[in-house]
Amino acid sequence: MKKVITYGTFDLFHYGHMKLLERAKNLGDYLIVGLSTDEFNLQKQKKSHHSYEHRKFILETIDLVNEVIPEKNWEQKISDIQKHDIDTFVIGDDWKGKFDFLKEYCEVIYLPRTDGISTTQIKKDMASL
Amino acid sequence: MKKVITYGTFDLFHYGHMKLLERAKNLGDYLIVGLSTDEFNLQKQKKSHHSYEHRKFILETIDLVNEVIPEKNWEQKISDIQKHDIDTFVIGDDWKGKFDFLKEYCEVIYLPRTDGISTTQIKKDMASL
Repeated sequence: MKKVITYGTFDLFHYGHMKLLERAKNLGDYLIVGLSTDEFNLQKQKKSHHSYEHRKFILETIDLVNEVIPEKNWEQKISDIQKHDIDTFVIGDDWKGKFDFLKEYCEVIYLPRTDGISTTQIKKDMASL
Repeated sequence: MKKVITYGTFDLFHYGHMKLLERAKNLGDYLIVGLSTDEFNLQKQKKSHHSYEHRKFILETIDLVNEVIPEKNWEQKISDIQKHDIDTFVIGDDWKGKFDFLKEYCEVIYLPRTDGISTTQIKKDMASL
């Protein structure tokens, strides 16, 4: 069983999120999502609109996602990969190069983002209504 | 096979949408969602942030939902119920009483909305950022 992991906040869930999950799942058989906790978001000076619990509930109800784990800090990725026997780490290509250090532990793939859609853009659009 | 139908816009997909879909699915075996088209939304003086195609893609990727059909006008519900052999019509209880006329054709259930969350509220929150 090929295990894939990706990380993100998945706030204001949208089409681009689903496309990313679909492509990540297609790289293996079992998809784990490391979901940023509300506390970790604050550390990153980010504030998600939806709580961790609500974001987690949506991901867990999507058939593509097999497991959701909390992402609490930047440092946990190596131990996550080892603990969950991960074969492939996947993330959007806006992070290109940032996680090359993980290549020592598993395959690393940067997926192109879906054009024209992002949570940041949604927030900007909404703020300008 | 007990067939259930619900209708909505499902814009800025959130926890409350997923809860509604979960409860609707629990009322039967097969869940159809009548999804407001962008044109129908304009008729209702509503403008969804996400396009019909994007909203449809999210619903179709959720395991709970078996089928998505376009909702193009107010009048199509009776023919939808007949055409798809629907046993139960479900909608949020903010519509209480409005669809009692459908009781002649199938069971009608008004589900309580999940407190504290709605697309309208999300838009207000975002606009006040």
